[in-house]
Amino acid sequence: MNEQDLTRREFIKNTAIVGAGLVFFKPTDILANENKGYIMNKTVLTKGYAAFDESGVLKPWTFERRAVGDDDILIEIKAASICHSDIHQEKGHWGKQQYPQVPGHEIAGIVTQVGKNVTKFKVGDRAGVGCMVNGCTTCEEEQYHPETKFTYGYPESKEPTGITQGGYSTHLVVRDHFAVHIPENVSFEKAAPLLCAGITTYSPLMKAKIKKGDKVGVAGIGGLGHMAVKIAVSKGAEVYAFTTSADKVEDIKGFGVKEVIVVDDELKALYAYAGQLDYMICTIPYQFDVAAYASVVKPYGFFTMVGMPVDFQITLSNIGLASSRVNFNASLIGGMKETQEMVDYCVANNVLPEIEIIKASEITEAWKKVVDKKARYRYVIDTATI
Amino acid sequence: MNEQDLTRREFIKNTAIVGAGLVFFKPTDILANENKGYIMNKTVLTKGYAAFDESGVLKPWTFERRAVGDDDILIEIKAASICHSDIHQEKGHWGKQQYPQVPGHEIAGIVTQVGKNVTKFKVGDRAGVGCMVNGCTTCEEEQYHPETKFTYGYPESKEPTGITQGGYSTHLVVRDHFAVHIPENVSFEKAAPLLCAGITTYSPLMKAKIKKGDKVGVAGIGGLGHMAVKIAVSKGAEVYAFTTSADKVEDIKGFGVKEVIVVDDELKALYAYAGQLDYMICTIPYQFDVAAYASVVKPYGFFTMVGMPVDFQITLSNIGLASSRVNFNASLIGGMKETQEMVDYCVANNVLPEIEIIKASEITEAWKKVVDKKARYRYVIDTATI
Repeated sequence: MNEQDLTRREFIKNTAIVGAGLVFFKPTDILANENKGYIMNKTVLTKGYAAFDESGVLKPWTFERRAVGDDDILIEIKAASICHSDIHQEKGHWGKQQYPQVPGHEIAGIVTQVGKNVTKFKVGDRAGVGCMVNGCTTCEEEQYHPETKFTYGYPESKEPTGITQGGYSTHLVVRDHFAVHIPENVSFEKAAPLLCAGITTYSPLMKAKIKKGDKVGVAGIGGLGHMAVKIAVSKGAEVYAFTTSADKVEDIKGFGVKEVIVVDDELKALYAYAGQLDYMICTIPYQFDVAAYASVVKPYGFFTMVGMPVDFQITLSNIGLASSRVNFNASLIGGMKETQEMVDYCVANNVLPEIEIIKASEITEAWKKVVDKKARYRYVIDTATI
Repeated sequence: MNEQDLTRREFIKNTAIVGAGLVFFKPTDILANENKGYIMNKTVLTKGYAAFDESGVLKPWTFERRAVGDDDILIEIKAASICHSDIHQEKGHWGKQQYPQVPGHEIAGIVTQVGKNVTKFKVGDRAGVGCMVNGCTTCEEEQYHPETKFTYGYPESKEPTGITQGGYSTHLVVRDHFAVHIPENVSFEKAAPLLCAGITTYSPLMKAKIKKGDKVGVAGIGGLGHMAVKIAVSKGAEVYAFTTSADKVEDIKGFGVKEVIVVDDELKALYAYAGQLDYMICTIPYQFDVAAYASVVKPYGFFTMVGMPVDFQITLSNIGLASSRVNFNASLIGGMKETQEMVDYCVANNVLPEIEIIKASEITEAWKKVVDKKARYRYVIDTATI
């Protein structure tokens, strides 16, 4: 039994419980909500783009979110961006999914309603939501807490669809603790990608205590990778960017790196950097030669994997890793306090993503481009087009 | 291309060079050396037990070692023990081998000849040799140096057979730097397993800076594991031993551990220890659920893999490792200075292996028992029976 089986079994078990307790809505209720976005104490009619199967094709879908609870806020979503994780999950790469399922965990919008206990937000505030929507509100690293509810596809008995539904949609009900404030001087479109790509790279870079002059490697320069580059550059590191896309070189130089290294299938380009870097973060979301990439880090340094490959499984050469003497670890997003710190830091220091705004009808095509490494560097959905 | 392919290609390349430069001996030369063990300035006729293919069957074989060079010593081997690595390598689990090949890298004996530059040893000294026989003599971690020649199956143009030949034999020619002194108050049989099982576990335990009262996990209680347990106990750690063999429990308790945990196929026993230990060393020489085992270590702690699985490949759950927040690393034996330190420490503190002495004719059967987890805990070959 591996973790994946555990997760799946847990998922099936939870889904069964949720199924038994599902609240069914009369079509008239849904019709009554139409065009209002939400009604106090009632479920929130929401338009979204959902996956209906593992095909990778997304289509419009109207669904209900839970009513806004006493500790919840309702966000009218203005922008939601596309993360490679959305694709992995909806295609079933991480286990079987319940459909229809609305993906999206890089979300920015405006607070339009607050529960009676909420003091963190008021109506009209700009708010962002990432990969978590509920769970423990007292620990520092909520992402590792067993009670955490992730933003989409996660069993949630309070939700009319039985699972959480993500940000490719018009509205979101979220526990206040799991939303962050978005400063005024950034667009929703530029802010959205910070909520996953930003925090997922910021958190391990901060844990690695990178400092001015450190040689920091970033492998995989897509949505996450280009944020890792920008954050590390902004912190004063000498950044070495490793990409397999020769046509990204000029862009990446523009982000302020020390060097861009184009890595071919034989990985020869890596050998010249053996044992040179102080730290490396890797965003590659598929299998790759971990030990070969890790070997560019100094002995006893650290290599952090933030890409999540198919089935979450990664294979590495044990003797290769031994030879490099590098510590391998993996990291999952970041805690809520750190997420707010990251948003504030990135906006204050103009560490913002390169984006391309798309219509909702273009999501399926955009997903294909992400897989084909054609994104430059984050597609952001204008949710007004949903 | 992965490291394994690289190693193989390098191996094939080097073997080809060696093949071209091979020194061929006339049968009369060999006969002249018979019964003398060695002759000054001449190759050393040696009897050994060799693998002739990937079958795991070892048979007697007489071969030549290189003449004793100016920096070499000649050791008359008194005891050589069986490591799981011998089995992996001879069975081709780590890549194709050149046969006949004599395995064995846990070697203890008496110095019978020294080269003219040698000051480290004199004739009559007790000496031990582990996994390395030549290479860089100035660095602290010779095991990671690209010039290192490993004890058997490694291309070596100076050797008449074209490769290094290991310790299941009567004599060994080795660069002085790569032998250690064995104190008088330990038998050769008890000393031999220290040269790999001892150093391979001692080195990462010392790097992890384990101290009195630390909770140290050891997974896989075979030859390496039982030495890891004894070393950690001797350093004052609270040791948690994880084994799949229920019939080892009483033995392991006798080694002074705090707890023995019998792990079944579902790994349930691990969950009770989630996030509890300060450090863990794992000696399992096959694929296993890395993230599940690593999860018993405290967040941001370290988990060291010293077992070397088939093809050197290890597969782990990236999300499982992320959730545990544990650093995974791998370690390969130890440096020569540290090996001497370990031998001296283990002998002075009676941290010695549990052994069963066998005849050379029993090697093939002993290998089967090692694979079947029946070793208690190290088979040591009495080389007088070769």
